[in-house]
Amino acid sequence: MKSFNIAVIPGDGIGPEVVEEALKVLAVIEEQENVKFHYQYGRLGGCAIDEDGTPLPEHTVQISKAADAVLLGAVGGPKWDQNPSHLRPEVGILGIRKALGLYANLRPAITYECMAKVSSLKEEVVAGVDLMVVRELTGGIYFGDKKRFTSEDGKETATDTLIYQEDEIDRIARKAFEIAMKRNKRLVSVDKANVLESSRLWRSIIEKVAKDYPEVEYSHMLVDNCAMQLVRAPKQFDVIVTENMFGDILSDEASMLTGSIGMLASASLSDGNFGLYEPIHGTAPDIAGKGLANPIATILSAALMLRYSFGLDQAAQRIEEAVETVLNRGVRTSDIAEDREKAIGTKEMTEQILSVL
Amino acid sequence: MKSFNIAVIPGDGIGPEVVEEALKVLAVIEEQENVKFHYQYGRLGGCAIDEDGTPLPEHTVQISKAADAVLLGAVGGPKWDQNPSHLRPEVGILGIRKALGLYANLRPAITYECMAKVSSLKEEVVAGVDLMVVRELTGGIYFGDKKRFTSEDGKETATDTLIYQEDEIDRIARKAFEIAMKRNKRLVSVDKANVLESSRLWRSIIEKVAKDYPEVEYSHMLVDNCAMQLVRAPKQFDVIVTENMFGDILSDEASMLTGSIGMLASASLSDGNFGLYEPIHGTAPDIAGKGLANPIATILSAALMLRYSFGLDQAAQRIEEAVETVLNRGVRTSDIAEDREKAIGTKEMTEQILSVL
Ligand SMILES: CC(C)[C@H](C(=O)O)[C@@H](O)C(=O)O
Ligand SMILES: CC(C)[C@H](C(=O)O)[C@@H](O)C(=O)O
Repeated sequence: MKSFNIAVIPGDGIGPEVVEEALKVLAVIEEQENVKFHYQYGRLGGCAIDEDGTPLPEHTVQISKAADAVLLGAVGGPKWDQNPSHLRPEVGILGIRKALGLYANLRPAITYECMAKVSSLKEEVVAGVDLMVVRELTGGIYFGDKKRFTSEDGKETATDTLIYQEDEIDRIARKAFEIAMKRNKRLVSVDKANVLESSRLWRSIIEKVAKDYPEVEYSHMLVDNCAMQLVRAPKQFDVIVTENMFGDILSDEASMLTGSIGMLASASLSDGNFGLYEPIHGTAPDIAGKGLANPIATILSAALMLRYSFGLDQAAQRIEEAVETVLNRGVRTSDIAEDREKAIGTKEMTEQILSVL
Repeated sequence: MKSFNIAVIPGDGIGPEVVEEALKVLAVIEEQENVKFHYQYGRLGGCAIDEDGTPLPEHTVQISKAADAVLLGAVGGPKWDQNPSHLRPEVGILGIRKALGLYANLRPAITYECMAKVSSLKEEVVAGVDLMVVRELTGGIYFGDKKRFTSEDGKETATDTLIYQEDEIDRIARKAFEIAMKRNKRLVSVDKANVLESSRLWRSIIEKVAKDYPEVEYSHMLVDNCAMQLVRAPKQFDVIVTENMFGDILSDEASMLTGSIGMLASASLSDGNFGLYEPIHGTAPDIAGKGLANPIATILSAALMLRYSFGLDQAAQRIEEAVETVLNRGVRTSDIAEDREKAIGTKEMTEQILSVL
């Protein structure tokens, strides 16, 4: 029997609740696919600051490196927002990305037909949106030099450096072209080449890599224009590839097209099959522990794990279809309900999905 | 009789056409307000590259500096897109901003009730949106050091530096608080303080300046969250202040809420009353010279000039009201028409506005 090691990092807020639900789904997959999942638990972010005195304990890095994939809930919360900067939850997030070499962040934004109503965009604009933002995740201004100093003329000054090397761009470009090949073979690379030197390097590497994927129709788009086009006509996009900071902004913007951040999954991949999977929503401290959180984003993240890290494509698809079936039946948690009175809780949503599975 | 000197820079594409219309409106204002406008013409961008061999001729800087305000059409076009980087139109734009010290870019995004239908967002989400993005325009990553080199281990590398000094942040913060005081006294400062050192400096200066404006209710928002909130619930915003690159992205995103970029004006201000005014739309090469361009954005830019540089607030308001009246009557150029058959041209739109004035 095939077996896989999964590092499970429930995190803070609603993180533990939604992870628990995803594990129920994985238990069903174990039986259906005749595979075995072994779990190791780790802490990250706020709970790690409280328990271990650091947002990224060495133990968490170790079990993650030893695993075939990582399943993460959510990290952070107001409790730690005023901490000194090295004791903040996001240091844990950025640290684990770097430690595990997770350079490719995949963020699918899908608007299910039956959900287009709850989007703030017109139904005809978003119904059928199915795009993927591929964000570079371990380079750029996130990890470049940061300085704080008083200039010679006595002014407080701060700098951040946006830095990219050709190999960093090459590998994320290849990931994006590969993904485009498996989808509708259209790729838009987003940069600010009319202003940034790093974008001009970015663009030239995209051009080079594109030669290896002649079937993919690709183009370049400036980031300001892309921010407009995502609102104006999101259906024009299949795959978007961009650098770390632009990807942070554009993927969050794109997530809003779908009507609910409570349903969006993400995968962060390194070379090979290793990846970290997490819902894109936050820790939602206001509803933590109340059994109200929408588990769909985490369940869909687990599906991405089956596909990208374990090669269990059919199991992944079965989960995705089960989610869609349940949504089509009108089953809703409160974040996506038109009528909140009829909304069900975290566990009930999972039960519905399991019953279809 | 009061008189004002205006540097007029028609630019490329539809720029000259729309500027011509704004000048017709200004001619009416001269009579109504008993003031005199003196015009000096300059070139910038593509036409300057062709005629003068540089995107920003010294003559243009001189007449602009000598003027009380600058009225700009639009700059750029595919003809110059493949030029070497120092011969590209955007070098002219960035150059004139820096040369004239235009550090505060004001971008109002207003959705007229009668226009909410053409937005890609649901009518109830955007009807009544009236927000202002205040973007820092002469600092940050746009003007920091740029480098391209081969690293010691032989890799092609590019860097851009995001740099801010306290006085640059202080002055844009004050502009934004002043503007908030004249509006609904609500300000959101956007940064990425959980990642960027420059954002942490930004945030601390905002806190300091806020003390001088106790009436303004202000808060901080992360840029990724702001990109979401603009789509989710844009009516929550009154004034947004942010650094150069974030402002570039967010103001373009915000412009899409309104249904048409053909109606959006902008002001770029230095200290004192001096400013440069321009529509935010581009040169629209596809319709240039055809008499189809929407002149409203440029006419509204001229109104901003009357308000911010000449202190002619009432004249400005009369123009804005005339535009709204005409729109309420259902008069449309093709870019904002629901029924393109009934759309009118550039000159006809101006005539309608003049007839109300
Ligand atoms: C928490 C923060 C550092 C992080 C980022 O900016 O990458 C988050 O916004 C994300 O997108 O995962
Ligand atoms: C043309 C370009 C350099 C410019 C900018 O990025 O500032 C434009 O996008 C703008 O917003 O005025």
